[in-house]
Amino acid sequence: MDRAAPSLADLAPGAAGEDERLARQIAFILEIDRLKGVLRRTLLVDRSRRENSAEHSWHIALAAVLLAEHAAETVDLGRVVTMLLVHDLVEIDAGDTYVYDAGAALDKAAREERAAERLFGLLPPDQAAELRALWEEFEARATPEARFAAAVDRLQPILHNAATEGHTWRQHGVVRAQVEAVNRHIADGAPDLWKLVRRLLDEAVARGHLGG
Amino acid sequence: MDRAAPSLADLAPGAAGEDERLARQIAFILEIDRLKGVLRRTLLVDRSRRENSAEHSWHIALAAVLLAEHAAETVDLGRVVTMLLVHDLVEIDAGDTYVYDAGAALDKAAREERAAERLFGLLPPDQAAELRALWEEFEARATPEARFAAAVDRLQPILHNAATEGHTWRQHGVVRAQVEAVNRHIADGAPDLWKLVRRLLDEAVARGHLGG
Repeated sequence: MDRAAPSLADLAPGAAGEDERLARQIAFILEIDRLKGVLRRTLLVDRSRRENSAEHSWHIALAAVLLAEHAAETVDLGRVVTMLLVHDLVEIDAGDTYVYDAGAALDKAAREERAAERLFGLLPPDQAAELRALWEEFEARATPEARFAAAVDRLQPILHNAATEGHTWRQHGVVRAQVEAVNRHIADGAPDLWKLVRRLLDEAVARGHLGG
Repeated sequence: MDRAAPSLADLAPGAAGEDERLARQIAFILEIDRLKGVLRRTLLVDRSRRENSAEHSWHIALAAVLLAEHAAETVDLGRVVTMLLVHDLVEIDAGDTYVYDAGAALDKAAREERAAERLFGLLPPDQAAELRALWEEFEARATPEARFAAAVDRLQPILHNAATEGHTWRQHGVVRAQVEAVNRHIADGAPDLWKLVRRLLDEAVARGHLGG
């Protein structure tokens, strides 16, 4: 069922009337629950189903905490983690765009821009601006935090592919050169992790899980 | 399918041999993917299915960022967020214990203790100690960070119940006095949020979604 998320005014009219700021925060928290319904191409490691963008965001936020020592530059880890918690929210309206789908990439920016406007606009203005700025920083990859966050975001589906005999790569006929081209910026955010990725790709090609 | 997560030694033997610390970090990251398969009682807001503990952890980590101004005391938000990313990991082995199930609560501590030993033990020792300490801090609720984290963790399923006409409360015949007893510590971590919860419960009882 796809129902509109109720607002605090629906659930507790008195509370919403008293504190508009809190009502906006709660409306946003209820609305972003939809990210749990946005499916990615990636399989879970146990291959039971496709991953959704909310649980993916949890996974990489915690992975960033654990892998912080591999960041290319010193990073403010709190900002990295918040960036990763926020980075996929626009998919609630814009959907997940598969990184190897060049066609969908064409209007991705416009779709995500509209999504950001609506979603972050639910929040009190100061928090809307703060979260939107973090999302834009992630997308631009112009700061050490954004480059490291992007590296972790890209490492995870490669790990899942390696752990599932290249399931998604094989399904979409992806070859090594594409994986390298699309993910090369991992090297900017975390050179050690890029080295690891290349080893994983060597093995995947050798095992026939990824086109050479 | 329930398969054991592969290790880095399985996926890229060369890389694992070179860097044991990174191999441990990757093993842990692959293993915790299982949290996506641990189901909670809570429904998603759109009622399409039950929520899993990984996406729940994402949701409350981001909610904590947005609701930080409602914390009872000044908190280190980075620690709160990391605590929430980690707080349910033991469920991978111990399962989710429903807060209104007094029977399951009896051996919860022992089950979770064993889970913590195994799971955090996959990490390099310094990181194992760090994450385990954060989990223990969360459970003890003896710091401002843990009290605020616990408040947000408990607010979210109440919001989901309010947004789904008390689905889980009705299913399990839960009454208001139980909700208040089990969640009263929200008041210690975030008094404003406890006030909000009481308004939500007033409405839920008035609408027949929660036993009075």
